[in-house]
Amino acid sequence: MRPSGRALNEMRPVSIETGFTKHAEGSCLIKMGDTHVLCTATIDERVPPFIKGSGLGWVTAEYGMLPRATNTRMRREAASGKQGGRTVEIQRLIGRALRAGVDRVALGERQITVDCDVLQADGGTRCASITGGWVALRLAVNKLMKAGVVKMDPLVDPVSAISCGIYAGQPVLDLDYPEDSEAGVDGNFIMTGSGKLIEIQMSAEGSVFSREQMNELMDLAAKGTSELAEIQKAACA
Amino acid sequence: MRPSGRALNEMRPVSIETGFTKHAEGSCLIKMGDTHVLCTATIDERVPPFIKGSGLGWVTAEYGMLPRATNTRMRREAASGKQGGRTVEIQRLIGRALRAGVDRVALGERQITVDCDVLQADGGTRCASITGGWVALRLAVNKLMKAGVVKMDPLVDPVSAISCGIYAGQPVLDLDYPEDSEAGVDGNFIMTGSGKLIEIQMSAEGSVFSREQMNELMDLAAKGTSELAEIQKAACA
Amino acid sequence: MRPSGRALNEMRPVSIETGFTKHAEGSCLIKMGDTHVLCTATIDERVPPFIKGSGLGWVTAEYGMLPRATNTRMRREAASGKQGGRTVEIQRLIGRALRAGVDRVALGERQITVDCDVLQADGGTRCASITGGWVALRLAVNKLMKAGVVKMDPLVDPVSAISCGIYAGQPVLDLDYPEDSEAGVDGNFIMTGSGKLIEIQMSAEGSVFSREQMNELMDLAAKGTSELAEIQKAACA
Amino acid sequence: MRPSGRALNEMRPVSIETGFTKHAEGSCLIKMGDTHVLCTATIDERVPPFIKGSGLGWVTAEYGMLPRATNTRMRREAASGKQGGRTVEIQRLIGRALRAGVDRVALGERQITVDCDVLQADGGTRCASITGGWVALRLAVNKLMKAGVVKMDPLVDPVSAISCGIYAGQPVLDLDYPEDSEAGVDGNFIMTGSGKLIEIQMSAEGSVFSREQMNELMDLAAKGTSELAEIQKAACA
Amino acid sequence: MRPSGRALNEMRPVSIETGFTKHAEGSCLIKMGDTHVLCTATIDERVPPFIKGSGLGWVTAEYGMLPRATNTRMRREAASGKQGGRTVEIQRLIGRALRAGVDRVALGERQITVDCDVLQADGGTRCASITGGWVALRLAVNKLMKAGVVKMDPLVDPVSAISCGIYAGQPVLDLDYPEDSEAGVDGNFIMTGSGKLIEIQMSAEGSVFSREQMNELMDLAAKGTSELAEIQKAACA
Amino acid sequence: MRPSGRALNEMRPVSIETGFTKHAEGSCLIKMGDTHVLCTATIDERVPPFIKGSGLGWVTAEYGMLPRATNTRMRREAASGKQGGRTVEIQRLIGRALRAGVDRVALGERQITVDCDVLQADGGTRCASITGGWVALRLAVNKLMKAGVVKMDPLVDPVSAISCGIYAGQPVLDLDYPEDSEAGVDGNFIMTGSGKLIEIQMSAEGSVFSREQMNELMDLAAKGTSELAEIQKAACA
Repeated sequence: MRPSGRALNEMRPVSIETGFTKHAEGSCLIKMGDTHVLCTATIDERVPPFIKGSGLGWVTAEYGMLPRATNTRMRREAASGKQGGRTVEIQRLIGRALRAGVDRVALGERQITVDCDVLQADGGTRCASITGGWVALRLAVNKLMKAGVVKMDPLVDPVSAISCGIYAGQPVLDLDYPEDSEAGVDGNFIMTGSGKLIEIQMSAEGSVFSREQMNELMDLAAKGTSELAEIQKAACA
Repeated sequence: MRPSGRALNEMRPVSIETGFTKHAEGSCLIKMGDTHVLCTATIDERVPPFIKGSGLGWVTAEYGMLPRATNTRMRREAASGKQGGRTVEIQRLIGRALRAGVDRVALGERQITVDCDVLQADGGTRCASITGGWVALRLAVNKLMKAGVVKMDPLVDPVSAISCGIYAGQPVLDLDYPEDSEAGVDGNFIMTGSGKLIEIQMSAEGSVFSREQMNELMDLAAKGTSELAEIQKAACA
Repeated sequence: MRPSGRALNEMRPVSIETGFTKHAEGSCLIKMGDTHVLCTATIDERVPPFIKGSGLGWVTAEYGMLPRATNTRMRREAASGKQGGRTVEIQRLIGRALRAGVDRVALGERQITVDCDVLQADGGTRCASITGGWVALRLAVNKLMKAGVVKMDPLVDPVSAISCGIYAGQPVLDLDYPEDSEAGVDGNFIMTGSGKLIEIQMSAEGSVFSREQMNELMDLAAKGTSELAEIQKAACA
Repeated sequence: MRPSGRALNEMRPVSIETGFTKHAEGSCLIKMGDTHVLCTATIDERVPPFIKGSGLGWVTAEYGMLPRATNTRMRREAASGKQGGRTVEIQRLIGRALRAGVDRVALGERQITVDCDVLQADGGTRCASITGGWVALRLAVNKLMKAGVVKMDPLVDPVSAISCGIYAGQPVLDLDYPEDSEAGVDGNFIMTGSGKLIEIQMSAEGSVFSREQMNELMDLAAKGTSELAEIQKAACA
Repeated sequence: MRPSGRALNEMRPVSIETGFTKHAEGSCLIKMGDTHVLCTATIDERVPPFIKGSGLGWVTAEYGMLPRATNTRMRREAASGKQGGRTVEIQRLIGRALRAGVDRVALGERQITVDCDVLQADGGTRCASITGGWVALRLAVNKLMKAGVVKMDPLVDPVSAISCGIYAGQPVLDLDYPEDSEAGVDGNFIMTGSGKLIEIQMSAEGSVFSREQMNELMDLAAKGTSELAEIQKAACA
Repeated sequence: MRPSGRALNEMRPVSIETGFTKHAEGSCLIKMGDTHVLCTATIDERVPPFIKGSGLGWVTAEYGMLPRATNTRMRREAASGKQGGRTVEIQRLIGRALRAGVDRVALGERQITVDCDVLQADGGTRCASITGGWVALRLAVNKLMKAGVVKMDPLVDPVSAISCGIYAGQPVLDLDYPEDSEAGVDGNFIMTGSGKLIEIQMSAEGSVFSREQMNELMDLAAKGTSELAEIQKAACA
């Protein structure tokens, strides 16, 4: 019934290739089906003014899409002179999500910037960015720990994200672009490896949904993020 | 236990003064406690390019805050040369929320722009904007129906929004600024008068929450929006 | 003969509601007929670089109009990415006008920012902004004096402003929008309560005027600002 | 008593060299003492949208200053990404001033853009721009009349501008930079060759002035603009 | 003698992986040593205004660098609100280079946009962009020819580019980053497969060079681009 | 054969008027035929951050064109909100060219900014800017040496620039606008008075050229810049 032939609760094949670029302190290319995102983590000993002297660390994120990552070419944001509303929303979301899984005391007063750049898009780019971004962050933190500048692991529980929605009347897991563009109701769930909730964004563009449907979607999200946490751990091993 | 002395499931006093400005096709000043938002609705017979010729209507929203609506003065966005990420996120949310309650066929090919400008802020400005914005929209649509250009009512069910969060370990309804700035977990629920869900945005900044807590917050939100729907109806009567 | 039925030398009804918002150190909503402007004054102990260490105070102003303050909706300046030429001109005028009535030595090295936001426009918004802005400034300075940080009153003489112009061949006081949009010759006069001149901006868009007409307009302006000074004093009492 | 040794009512030497650049339909280099402004007029058969089909002409102006026209180098506005408030104010003033002297019916539905670029500044650049800008406009209109596309002269009366102010307690004509930077009260008067007023901008930065002083300044302005009108006529002959 | 141990006239290993992304009409990932650039070509039947109706085609290019493509993270251009001078220069160069190899009559009135995005940088990104960009262009044109909309091949001779410079007193081919950052004299040569010159940009930052040195560099460039042309042909076969 | 009747290897008449503006530390108006550029040099004891404390000097350049310097009016860059790609390219080129002729140790830790503003354009504005810019720089440095703050002359060899191209199949020197707009192949050569090369930019827009043609163009450039060096020396004497 799904265009891809997947079962209702079946994610796309996921692969995570770490060390995709050589300069970043942590990097990976995550593929969720045909959605490919290059994630890099940059360690900076300088911190933003609002935490200077606090002893606390900070994690922030930026998101971008190459102009021809999509089916039709989108205008380059650098050329149009500003990041669009969608971009700003997504990168704020990625930053909040990753910070929720970080012990900022343990990280110490430094900043890690996670860049998520979509090379190819087929739905679910913000979820792939969070899941891959956590891996890049993990690798960068490993470097800090190996170097002895961070003593206690600030990443206790992996953070991943998955989209769920109602497609053709049925709750489905991990929507691809053909599903996403038709689903009236869909959203993103960000959870920890141990099943705690970090962020929920459910939206019914031009539609509505019931409490029962919401519960079904939360069940799917729990299944998906639990699988993603295993894949993240394997990639970082 | 709450700084304001309110019960856990008690909203702040709400008032809606319609016709607050004379030029707009619909307008109101909504007060949720010390949060005051001026909402106006403007009818435009021209529509954005992407719906031209479709016969469908469009509702969009813009959001702003006066520089001294807050405790310390914020820089004027017009002066800094762009709308901040928070502003863009909020106005996209208001637009989506209001559109979810509109029958776009019944509205016909025209656009209504809802401007929500915060005169005074004390937490929950985006929720007040949606609740008050719907009233401005309702009044503008009434004008179209009275003039006979819209025959069937495109607004079948009121749309309102309320924040919920976990404050001092307890789920509470309608956070004011002192609560909002301390709550690790909070979010906004947008619902229809008949109890359907339109959008959920739950976020745990630097924290996590459980499925049980999520359920309690959804109960509070249902109570709050049901009360708001009554107040909206009374204001438009 | 005037659309409003007013006498040639008759101002619109003026009201000033002080304390309209709770956060600002001084605030008022001034209404000159259907022109409504919210004025707030913010005290900042930091000063701009060019007066640092001088011991002198500074007063500056910003001006904005809500998108639907006018008969047809204007594009939000924050959205278009810059303040228009008209806005910049007006806020520079308000700042200069208010500074002319301030003893900057007595104020001491601090800055007061006066924000004037037009909620509803019907002509004369810059004059209402100056007149109301002075009231907000007065209230903020009162707070500084009450707290003992300012010893000598830096506001010796109230500052107010009124428009005058030639409408249907006759010199008239305080043009409303229908008059303003037809008057070939009009301008703004900023004066002190004791009748001194601070600024004159007379302009004949596509027209010219004589020295005699200029004298008649100055007589009207003197009458108007003298009445406004009384209203300002009453509001601050 | 004046730094330059001039009499109180004495202008600086004025010269106008027409045809300074070869591409523009009208051009001149105006020198008022050490203030040098290059003025060009460009005829465009396309008009702005708001007069399309009206049969009326339009005159607009732009103003700029080369970075090292002044004593210390100013940042290039093209590099800082926007025209400053002062620039915007001045070019709007030049445009209004020139339009006041144009019979827009006689000009016919076309636009003339007058560019005023300050090569060297020593006070009074906006007045020199208006006076020189009118000459460039005159030359461009001459071309239109010679070509027979404009039949009736749309420029009936020359437009010129001069600054006046109170320097060391005395009313003086045509302030140069050393005077301008010390005068508490000064302004610009735009008048026609036949002595009619077009625009007055009197400002007392941090000061005030009396009705009597205003009258003396108006006398000086009438003398100055009458002399300028003769110089303009001679330059265009 | 070279940091990489290469001979003076030896290029880095080059690989071109075509079809790297699925949406673009032509795409490849070109690797010149550790410099990796993703090139995509987008066909658009709409053309820029200046060639509308001419029957001629157009090829344009855009260039970008991911923030962490470099050794230290660079600010994202979309976030800083404009493309830097270096980016603008490079993308104009790529566009001119590719157009020089296109028969615009044969291409017909359509536009092809080549996006070159640097995933990892180690010197020579603009040369890799041109060489890889031509491959993406070639693949997109192949599609047009296969579909029969283009009858005669508009790409008669491959276009490639290579850097040459004087490093440690010796002329060297294809500078990597360690060489590039020390070479006082270096430049880029764009040539056709048949050895014709398209563009030369030789620059001596803070230095000078002789006619003899220029001749040696041109010899190296001819060798390098002739090798690149073979690699391009093999990749497209 | 050339539109101007010049011989193939003949430059336009060149004149350099020094001291054209009074404020700048060095200034000249250079005329190469109908191309007129005002060049000013500004000395600043503050240096950019990247050389602070190095003891080295810096020379930078900015370039602009008055809107009606050209045959049809171009939009003012300050009004369009950014410098175009062509402007950025040119001013970077001017800066690099001038720096190549400066002994930065001898100059000492200070910055000189050279502004090149085109008053009238007829082809070759960037070359005239470099040639005239060097004269302004020379005059400013003379001032520093006269004042004793610079002991050793940092300008050992004059820097000038000339365009060459292939027009109607023939290599020609110093293209004017009619030639420039038809030449498929043209470029700019920057050389020292003693015949060393600083920068070469040869470009074949939509065309190609041979190694032999390149050699002929380099011969022309050597002749032209050698003549310009003599004119520069005479102007500064």
